[in-house]
Amino acid sequence: MSANGVSPRKAVVVGAGPVGCLAAISLAKMGWMVEVYEGRPDMRLPSSKAAAQQRSINLAISTRGIAAIEAIEPKAADRFLKAVIPMRGRMIHHVGGRQESQPYDKDGQCINSIGRAFMNEDLLTDALTMPNTRAFFRHKVLNIDFDARVMSVRDEDAGQDKSVPFDFCVGADGCYSIVRSQLMRVVRMDYQQEYLPHDYLELKMPAGPPAQPGGEPTYLLDPNHLHIWPRHTFMLIALPNKDKTFTCTLFAPTTDFDRLDAPERIVNMFKTYFPDALPLIGEQALLYDFAHNPRSSLMTVKAEPYHYKDRAIILGDAAHAMVPFYGQGLNCGLEDVRVLDILLRAEGVDAATRVPDGEDDCLAKALARYSESRHEDLVSICELAMDNYVEMRHDVVTLGYLLCKAFDNILYSLTSKAILFSSLLPALTREPFPTRSPSGWLPQYTMVSFRPDISYSTVRRKAVRQRQILERAGWASVAVGVGAAGVAAFSVWRRLCNRA
Amino acid sequence: MSANGVSPRKAVVVGAGPVGCLAAISLAKMGWMVEVYEGRPDMRLPSSKAAAQQRSINLAISTRGIAAIEAIEPKAADRFLKAVIPMRGRMIHHVGGRQESQPYDKDGQCINSIGRAFMNEDLLTDALTMPNTRAFFRHKVLNIDFDARVMSVRDEDAGQDKSVPFDFCVGADGCYSIVRSQLMRVVRMDYQQEYLPHDYLELKMPAGPPAQPGGEPTYLLDPNHLHIWPRHTFMLIALPNKDKTFTCTLFAPTTDFDRLDAPERIVNMFKTYFPDALPLIGEQALLYDFAHNPRSSLMTVKAEPYHYKDRAIILGDAAHAMVPFYGQGLNCGLEDVRVLDILLRAEGVDAATRVPDGEDDCLAKALARYSESRHEDLVSICELAMDNYVEMRHDVVTLGYLLCKAFDNILYSLTSKAILFSSLLPALTREPFPTRSPSGWLPQYTMVSFRPDISYSTVRRKAVRQRQILERAGWASVAVGVGAAGVAAFSVWRRLCNRA
Repeated sequence: MSANGVSPRKAVVVGAGPVGCLAAISLAKMGWMVEVYEGRPDMRLPSSKAAAQQRSINLAISTRGIAAIEAIEPKAADRFLKAVIPMRGRMIHHVGGRQESQPYDKDGQCINSIGRAFMNEDLLTDALTMPNTRAFFRHKVLNIDFDARVMSVRDEDAGQDKSVPFDFCVGADGCYSIVRSQLMRVVRMDYQQEYLPHDYLELKMPAGPPAQPGGEPTYLLDPNHLHIWPRHTFMLIALPNKDKTFTCTLFAPTTDFDRLDAPERIVNMFKTYFPDALPLIGEQALLYDFAHNPRSSLMTVKAEPYHYKDRAIILGDAAHAMVPFYGQGLNCGLEDVRVLDILLRAEGVDAATRVPDGEDDCLAKALARYSESRHEDLVSICELAMDNYVEMRHDVVTLGYLLCKAFDNILYSLTSKAILFSSLLPALTREPFPTRSPSGWLPQYTMVSFRPDISYSTVRRKAVRQRQILERAGWASVAVGVGAAGVAAFSVWRRLCNRA
Repeated sequence: MSANGVSPRKAVVVGAGPVGCLAAISLAKMGWMVEVYEGRPDMRLPSSKAAAQQRSINLAISTRGIAAIEAIEPKAADRFLKAVIPMRGRMIHHVGGRQESQPYDKDGQCINSIGRAFMNEDLLTDALTMPNTRAFFRHKVLNIDFDARVMSVRDEDAGQDKSVPFDFCVGADGCYSIVRSQLMRVVRMDYQQEYLPHDYLELKMPAGPPAQPGGEPTYLLDPNHLHIWPRHTFMLIALPNKDKTFTCTLFAPTTDFDRLDAPERIVNMFKTYFPDALPLIGEQALLYDFAHNPRSSLMTVKAEPYHYKDRAIILGDAAHAMVPFYGQGLNCGLEDVRVLDILLRAEGVDAATRVPDGEDDCLAKALARYSESRHEDLVSICELAMDNYVEMRHDVVTLGYLLCKAFDNILYSLTSKAILFSSLLPALTREPFPTRSPSGWLPQYTMVSFRPDISYSTVRRKAVRQRQILERAGWASVAVGVGAAGVAAFSVWRRLCNRA
């Protein structure tokens, strides 16, 4: 019972991943009675941990994700910031073995490697600490009748189906979302899923031996970088873990993976293209991972709208799965929750309002505002993520890219002052994106990763304009260069003529 | 048992619409044991007829659809050609009441209005006349395990689920296809569904009174035209039925429909924009249809690939729902069956081949060839259909369009001879598209509707080239016109000067 004697309404959150957990916390803090339904077992059980380790064990969390958590659950953000491994830049591994550091930000801002399981468990624990939140694991949603506000759920342990009534349903159930497919039956949803013809496979790089006998294990590579072995059509990356290991991921065309069908081919490929990584991973471990780890696909999902009346909304990968090359998938999903939280409060949605037969106009309006205002941003980041694959596996070692990047940084230093994250925070709890037309020159990576006050669509528009300027500047430099060479040639010629 | 003593394999066809029925006939003729599963009741039962009448009661079938039926079931094609009402062209109804006939083809080729129920029943009866074909109505497919080659089906009458084993599964179950959604679980399918922000609603125009007492009822409009009331952002169309009635369809932006929320608004809208159609439909009937007929959405569906190994394929709307503005949706679905039939035969697929554990390489290859070769054509017709909406509701009354059309027809008369459908037929049973680069000038509408020997993608490419030529010719004419006017002005000026 709430303060005014009216029992609060019930929100069901489908999916207990980081986005679902943060959404549960947001709604519980607004007074909703929250029930989280998750098809997998409770990730806190020891038996679940091994399964969870099989893939995507770490994530890169940037300011955008941290800002979202800060806005909703500040104490969790503080804990995460203590648990992350900051990565200051990319470490490019050339074929010859040379390593080259490319910082992410001139002012030293970092993205952060964090264990997915750690972060997920932490947010789940926070959610379940609240008295008005409960979670049901191994409960699989079968279908949802949004008009009757009831969903049918299979309890895998009890082996029986049950009906779960709800007032509001949040789908945070990933790229193969059942909430989304159920929504598509009642909403005229424009929907697109597109596979990249590339796959990925995770490989483990172990910790190194202690510096002295009996000491701590050590990192085999610099832990404060995201390591990349760019090989034009494919690449290997590595992110550090707290236990001194690295998680490596090989991204390559599906057809290339198909050819790696025998141990000697796998080892030869690594000897040829990743000669410095092979001894660190180890031949046996490499072959073991190739044999046992799943080869996964890369998909982009776009949808619109994201909601249905005052009944339901999809967030995170359920609404916008993207390729992982900007490290923004989860950051964007957490931002979804921050944006929704602000819109629900702005429309005055009250968990205690009872709408037995009618519709909650405030809630319907907040959800409609979400769909309208969020779509361009979500399409923008999906596309930025796709563009970044070419940058990571190819561009980063080209001269043109390096020159452009140098110019980019010079212009940034000349025209913009660094904005500290802490100074942005208060506005980010009140307004989705306080900075609409950012002034000065800002590199795209900085805006995406370190400026959550700027929406993805604004980033994209500004980045396009800046790239046009850089390209023109490039041609202008060529013209100046040709001109200078002409003047020099002319003066040499004159001198020769004078001598003659 | 087949001739060689081996029992044939089983193909399940999901969906008993015209495409499913033609696919069943094609497979049964190749010797497969065919089972057709349909969620709705048997359309031949009197109780089903009323429900079927509620929407889309007639279709425009063009040479492409007829060619497909001819190639697989010639006797059905002959019966249909006797039952159709030929439509020679569009009849444009201007707001002032003037009617203007725009023929579809200079040689008098027609598209044909045919009752959907008649055609569907006829094909179903043909399929079920074959000893190796059976149909199950009110059987709803729940899920399909393609790897185990078994599907789970709910028998609605018996109220129980059953397992149906199969060797090959054809999904012809429409734009909300369950076979497609089940395929998406095992195939990396690129998929897109997009709603047009326009809706449609069917209206009935009754038959007219007999010419003399006791005589036959009459048509209220010319039955040998497809009638269009183009009003730029919306339109009304009418197709003739055998019983002397017309089926009218109103297409309009969803927001316009939303405003038609009171009887007087509906009547006023018709009085303003369709003053000649209103008295023919009748105010009472109009309001009845608005109140009782469903307002339907318009969706485009694109997918790729269409198949999974040697197990399954999707055809018709399940693979490529399109907006109805080229009248090609069903024609294209029937063509899918013709193309698949040719590819199965070309790869030597044998219904008697048993592959208990392995894969039928011939079948897998035929299906892969289908996905590869058919995709560009299906995307092309989806896009041509979308383009045609603007042509039908707006362009047809503009001067530029009429001039272009006149030029188009002159060039057609000058460079191409009409090719009779009957002369094309033999090649169409052997090769999907015998004409790869059609010579001479051919209007787009002629190629789409009357030349099934030319694939949709070839049509699209040729139409783009021809449009560019027409546009340049248009500008050249303007230049010639300006030049001529200049010469005339100059001569007038000279004469004036000479007088002075």
